[in-house]
Amino acid sequence: MRTFSLEPYQAQFDALLVSDNHHKRYLSGFTGSGGHLLLTPMGPELLIAGKYWQQVEQQSPNCHRVCTDAIGWLGALQQRLKEHGVRRLGFEAHAMSYLDVESLRQGLSQVLVPTYDVVAPIRRCKSEQEVELIRKACAITEAAIELGLANFRFGMSEQELAAHLEFHARVLGADSIDFLIVVSGERGALPHGRPSQRIIGKDELLTIDFGVVYQGYHSDVTRTFCTGSISRELQQMFDAVYMAQQIGVKTLRPGIAASCVDKTVREYLALKGYEEEFCHGLGHGVGLQGHEYPLLTTNSLATLDVGMVLTVEPGVYLNGVGGARVEDTLVITEFGCESLTQLPRGLRNIADIA
Amino acid sequence: MRTFSLEPYQAQFDALLVSDNHHKRYLSGFTGSGGHLLLTPMGPELLIAGKYWQQVEQQSPNCHRVCTDAIGWLGALQQRLKEHGVRRLGFEAHAMSYLDVESLRQGLSQVLVPTYDVVAPIRRCKSEQEVELIRKACAITEAAIELGLANFRFGMSEQELAAHLEFHARVLGADSIDFLIVVSGERGALPHGRPSQRIIGKDELLTIDFGVVYQGYHSDVTRTFCTGSISRELQQMFDAVYMAQQIGVKTLRPGIAASCVDKTVREYLALKGYEEEFCHGLGHGVGLQGHEYPLLTTNSLATLDVGMVLTVEPGVYLNGVGGARVEDTLVITEFGCESLTQLPRGLRNIADIA
Repeated sequence: MRTFSLEPYQAQFDALLVSDNHHKRYLSGFTGSGGHLLLTPMGPELLIAGKYWQQVEQQSPNCHRVCTDAIGWLGALQQRLKEHGVRRLGFEAHAMSYLDVESLRQGLSQVLVPTYDVVAPIRRCKSEQEVELIRKACAITEAAIELGLANFRFGMSEQELAAHLEFHARVLGADSIDFLIVVSGERGALPHGRPSQRIIGKDELLTIDFGVVYQGYHSDVTRTFCTGSISRELQQMFDAVYMAQQIGVKTLRPGIAASCVDKTVREYLALKGYEEEFCHGLGHGVGLQGHEYPLLTTNSLATLDVGMVLTVEPGVYLNGVGGARVEDTLVITEFGCESLTQLPRGLRNIADIA
Repeated sequence: MRTFSLEPYQAQFDALLVSDNHHKRYLSGFTGSGGHLLLTPMGPELLIAGKYWQQVEQQSPNCHRVCTDAIGWLGALQQRLKEHGVRRLGFEAHAMSYLDVESLRQGLSQVLVPTYDVVAPIRRCKSEQEVELIRKACAITEAAIELGLANFRFGMSEQELAAHLEFHARVLGADSIDFLIVVSGERGALPHGRPSQRIIGKDELLTIDFGVVYQGYHSDVTRTFCTGSISRELQQMFDAVYMAQQIGVKTLRPGIAASCVDKTVREYLALKGYEEEFCHGLGHGVGLQGHEYPLLTTNSLATLDVGMVLTVEPGVYLNGVGGARVEDTLVITEFGCESLTQLPRGLRNIADIA
């Protein structure tokens, strides 16, 4: 929960309606998907159904509660805006549908002011408490990978292995599974491949990219394993990716342009002959969303700053052959970065883990 | 994949931009979240990045493919609208953000026509193939409940039991878990309670409400179990819910008002003294979404029709005591309905399953 000042925006609007669920949670502490958050000059107010009353009291002690049961949320909004003398109401242009904005126009006499990127920028640098929650999400994810892999047997499909990983993440206390990529053999060439019924074979690469949610905060970690001895082509590919990831992590520090980090890694992989084969951005922010700003991409305009949490995840994908990716989630510190993910990054044989 | 005629709408718009991912999938077969579907008088067109080319070819053979790599999706849209001589472009008011519509306004010379509920109504009655996919999703869910419960041991938390259920759903081939409610003892009074670290006790009720996704289609089933002998108060509550559910299912047939089904069940539970304690709608449609139209609620305006798939799920919730709910997913047939969920509905002791 973070305080928010309307002062910098007083030339534009008198109050802000926050509809983006992540922004709502960030500014109020309320974890439910219902309700509307109204930021007023007198402080934040949650317009919400009576059944959430107790939850709001526990999670959002600093928010004034407004019950919408009797007059609907639009009626409640009308009353509160009148009470505060609001004449210009800001709303989040990305988070309200055209239909929602039409309802506001019909129900309100205030001037409606579309806003862009008001809350998102302040979410980019995480508080210590946020970093600890991401650290915990990462720890659950990594433990689930190790415990899940311990169940590996030859003859198992990607889906079965995935089920073991998810099982352990749940038992370890993950709120939910964000996503799980398990790709083996030539399916490793799919950067976002879902676990399939393909049987994991001998002497292949196996890429696992796993993210869970813990108390609203996400994790993201990728490791590439082998299932025996691999070809020289695969080994070269893995080595290039491994080194590229190390290089990327080394460049992280406050003040560096996000595009520069991406460029450094991209140039290294091009040098190794994998210019075309690294076909996605280098990384992205992690927090209340699994993918958020800042992006580590060629076109990113972001500059890194202390407290930003982001991934570094180069990959190489060879159609019909296979792929490799290594990814950490890291927090930018005063002089560089700290990795929140800790599993060994070198190529491990899962037969040795199982 | 379903054909769609623009003819009924020719007084309103010449082409329709479909942005709702469920509608896009329904009308094109394309399962990805990227791309835009444009319905033109000449047929459907998918405006999409080159990397999805192969996927579109496989999944959407009847869609004309338009690659957006060179000129962006808005540029591609401009070209196609010009090609087709479109002057009025319909868009889905619920599925485009205010920001998206602003981009369209800036990039296009066409008149933009907001549309409401154009595609949703035709999704309400399922084809035979759709019913089979929902049936399969339900079968996976029910098998996962039985196999998961076989792992039950006293001392286990709700979260642990949930992990076993999810594990089996995954192994049985679920694409993903839609949701899983596991609530025991007094937590049974939470209609939407997430599995917690509470240890499942002896002589309690245990409610499991589970939904998975199979090839895009959802399932939804709830059963209430016991963990030994329960109090008379709990038994009465369960019996009322069980009978209410049977009554609800019996009323289902083509031509009946959805509100009437809800009312019949509500009146029965009121008679049993649970008027206030049944605090949610009776049911909802199931298909590409876990919750879709028609709704079985007091205010629903829908009339049931052959091929609609929906849930009937009365529940009673006593604060500080516990709760019970029984739910099936059913398809409306010519003379009544058929249940796609088959697990025994009577109160079973999970110690007998484990």
